[in-house]
Amino acid sequence: MSSGLETIKWDEKGLVAAVAQEASTGRVLMLAWMNQESLQATLDSGFATYWSRSRSRLWRKGEESGHRQRVKSMELDCDGDALVLQVEQEGGIACHTGRHSCFYRKWEDGKWLESEPVVRNPDEFYKAP
Amino acid sequence: MSSGLETIKWDEKGLVAAVAQEASTGRVLMLAWMNQESLQATLDSGFATYWSRSRSRLWRKGEESGHRQRVKSMELDCDGDALVLQVEQEGGIACHTGRHSCFYRKWEDGKWLESEPVVRNPDEFYKAP
Repeated sequence: MSSGLETIKWDEKGLVAAVAQEASTGRVLMLAWMNQESLQATLDSGFATYWSRSRSRLWRKGEESGHRQRVKSMELDCDGDALVLQVEQEGGIACHTGRHSCFYRKWEDGKWLESEPVVRNPDEFYKAP
Repeated sequence: MSSGLETIKWDEKGLVAAVAQEASTGRVLMLAWMNQESLQATLDSGFATYWSRSRSRLWRKGEESGHRQRVKSMELDCDGDALVLQVEQEGGIACHTGRHSCFYRKWEDGKWLESEPVVRNPDEFYKAP
């Protein structure tokens, strides 16, 4: 691991929050988590690689769907415990529901409204198990 | 608490990640945490209110510095465990270091470079204890 990365303050589980923002539009696409290994894999490959907390394994974003995120640049916050990745979203779809952004529910009048369309049916990009 | 908010999946500490994004520019300003109480306070007041993990108390953003965040809208992600707040940043400064965004360090050639200037010296907006 590059020594510059020692500035990062990993939490008690060895993770740091990573916000993926679409570089061309500024849209926040998703929030995920990285451990040291996934961050190093991101730097080595140039594609966002997260740590899946639910599956407890390295998650090469797009490994199944093809919706990879090419990382253009990376920013660290003042506390050293959160990252913003400026990415180019392949396929224009970040969300496993087939939407552009995972933040597709908007708070309106006391409830969550779906504010983004499904760009592509997930059945088309996830193979049956 | 509004019943619509029950959709949110609070973590084992009762928190959810909240990304504050400047509505007018798209700049990601900071990442903080909310519990139910702080989210309700945000909705009631119209200003971002977080849960300070370091101080274990409600954190009315800008309570000391004056740099409040007026919340224009709020989005929830597919997993229900992360929020994006579209905000108007009073004073144009989100960071306690006096910078526009907390994400002022950019990864370049194996190290973090400060990529945003200090807009205002924090001594000017934090009173001595």
